[in-house]
Amino acid sequence: MNSEIYLDNAATTKPYEEVIERMSDVARFTYGNSSSTHKKGIEGHRIVKSASETLSNILHCEPNEIIFTSGGSESNNMAIKGIFDANKGRGRHVITTPIEHPTLINTVKELNKDDGSYDLLAFDDNKNLDIKKLHQLVKKQTILVSIMHVNSETGEIIDLEKASSLTKNLNDRTYFHTDSVQGFCKLPINLNKLNNIDLLSLSGHKIKGPKGIGALYIKKNTNIKCLIEGGSHQYGLRAGTLNTPGIAGLEIAAKLAYNKLQENYDHVRVLNDYTKDMLKQYCKDYIINSPAINSPYILNIAFSGIASEVLLNHLSSKEIYVSAGSACSSSKKHSKVLQSMGVDDKYINGAIRVSFNHENTKAEIDLFIKEVNSILPMLRKFRRK
Amino acid sequence: MNSEIYLDNAATTKPYEEVIERMSDVARFTYGNSSSTHKKGIEGHRIVKSASETLSNILHCEPNEIIFTSGGSESNNMAIKGIFDANKGRGRHVITTPIEHPTLINTVKELNKDDGSYDLLAFDDNKNLDIKKLHQLVKKQTILVSIMHVNSETGEIIDLEKASSLTKNLNDRTYFHTDSVQGFCKLPINLNKLNNIDLLSLSGHKIKGPKGIGALYIKKNTNIKCLIEGGSHQYGLRAGTLNTPGIAGLEIAAKLAYNKLQENYDHVRVLNDYTKDMLKQYCKDYIINSPAINSPYILNIAFSGIASEVLLNHLSSKEIYVSAGSACSSSKKHSKVLQSMGVDDKYINGAIRVSFNHENTKAEIDLFIKEVNSILPMLRKFRRK
Repeated sequence: MNSEIYLDNAATTKPYEEVIERMSDVARFTYGNSSSTHKKGIEGHRIVKSASETLSNILHCEPNEIIFTSGGSESNNMAIKGIFDANKGRGRHVITTPIEHPTLINTVKELNKDDGSYDLLAFDDNKNLDIKKLHQLVKKQTILVSIMHVNSETGEIIDLEKASSLTKNLNDRTYFHTDSVQGFCKLPINLNKLNNIDLLSLSGHKIKGPKGIGALYIKKNTNIKCLIEGGSHQYGLRAGTLNTPGIAGLEIAAKLAYNKLQENYDHVRVLNDYTKDMLKQYCKDYIINSPAINSPYILNIAFSGIASEVLLNHLSSKEIYVSAGSACSSSKKHSKVLQSMGVDDKYINGAIRVSFNHENTKAEIDLFIKEVNSILPMLRKFRRK
Repeated sequence: MNSEIYLDNAATTKPYEEVIERMSDVARFTYGNSSSTHKKGIEGHRIVKSASETLSNILHCEPNEIIFTSGGSESNNMAIKGIFDANKGRGRHVITTPIEHPTLINTVKELNKDDGSYDLLAFDDNKNLDIKKLHQLVKKQTILVSIMHVNSETGEIIDLEKASSLTKNLNDRTYFHTDSVQGFCKLPINLNKLNNIDLLSLSGHKIKGPKGIGALYIKKNTNIKCLIEGGSHQYGLRAGTLNTPGIAGLEIAAKLAYNKLQENYDHVRVLNDYTKDMLKQYCKDYIINSPAINSPYILNIAFSGIASEVLLNHLSSKEIYVSAGSACSSSKKHSKVLQSMGVDDKYINGAIRVSFNHENTKAEIDLFIKEVNSILPMLRKFRRK
């Protein structure tokens, strides 16, 4: 089994063994509905309470500011639609960026049909998001600014402190949301210090936790509407029987990842740098699309004169797994993120994303580079014909 | 462990062992993101495809008419809001019933704020939902009729054939939705024959499947909007990384339950009748709120002169688990369902729901009745003081 080299950890991860075991235990023994008032219900409720406390300790917020959702996509949809619907009487303008996850940017674009309007932040000359442009965009009618924490294709890290405090300085009634699906438990987040952030999305399956579970941090006193409504669950903010096995699994994953956050970061930083060194040594005519200030968990490389799908297929046949962009936009031809960054046409077709976890090794990188290097000349030859 | 007697299966169920093992296997070995184009992604995609086929075989529909959701609550929300938002240009009137799940009826009521209007079906003299009243309610502007399949508190079965065909006869452009969370895999559903049903909600954890997973059947050519939008997943109808372990678990549970549908039904029918016999033999001054045409999986009993919570707490202390109503409305004082049915005040406080699964036994019912009988006189004495 272990011959496979999984370098697509930004798409999804293999759960920790402890997560799988904990989920099975909860499903088997603590299966009560956490809303039931009998003992089995109370056992279920305790699981939810414990997970809320763990997440709130990690994020430095209150347990009742955490809402469990079915994942990052639901969290993003709830943040955008929930803030828009609850506050549209006050203004219908939203600001976001061209590098957001499709569940965010497409949801913002849909608001147009509901009489909303939006603006997108542009890039600066260094191909980083130009936060200062908020000065020109935030207005009285702006009810929400949503800027992601870590870009899922390039690993660019946004300075949330700067972005959120600038937003509040420009309009203290504008809510600030961040999609931290690629940042949570990989980079430190202290919401007590980052107190201009009102909403934050996170996901279980990006941190070796379960699929189908995520959360939305909602700062107290935030005026937001339900996405999934009708029940008294979760302070009336999200109906539906709580997924206690998933919630317990998310708790374990978050604990394991958070306890070794720095250690894992350092390991992955070394791997990321090592990959770049090996590329420099063995490969020709490529660029690195990941910016200087980036999450080491994600490395975006673009080879000239190839179609990335062909490279991916070859690597897949050798059980080496990387991706062309985010899995969620895998049906699209070009990466919209790289396009909006202005990446040269010569490279954009040949972009791949390598995304690490702390269990990856240098030996795996060696094999990856070896395979890339062995096939690249042939791919370029074919392409030229 | 096996001393506990779980008779709250309409709230949630203990998953089949096969479900737990399959989920662990998928999480451990087939963890790829089903949207990824490499081999691990394709493995994930196959899981989704297989589950879609299994569910479509069970429901007698097409695989691409099944959308996986995070559960019955999301399915109900998507059906109501999705149909309303997509069709409100044609009419803003919705019809539902007073006995729906809170995620349905409360969502319908919320539409009022969005310029919608709704009507509720009433009961006939036999305390059954009066389907014929649709004649007076369906109008040109009616875009949706939503009537549940099996009531979660009383087990009343609605004649979906009659309700859906009457709806279409009155207005062939009105969509018909049913919440079948308590019916799926317990009663036969043939959507090929029931071809006036456009949407059907189902849930995993009510059939000994996983929590956090469900589905919405959407008949082809139905005009519906996304609830969780932004991705190309699931025909563009529901964004978010697919919860492959949950989907695989749902598939197994549905297969196991469907293959023994009649056998399980017969077993539970015997238990339900046995419970009523034992009540007749040993208990006094109670009524059965479940109507004549009911799902044997649910039995609603009301004892006069007691508060059901006290009875539930006593039973819970003996590891016997039943509920006062649906878990989702457990924070409410009176059951709205029983109130709307016109259940006498004398009994409404003392109503409990006993809900079975095919693993329950007569010996368990004996112990349940024994405990009820031993405490009932004392509860009534206390109450009178």
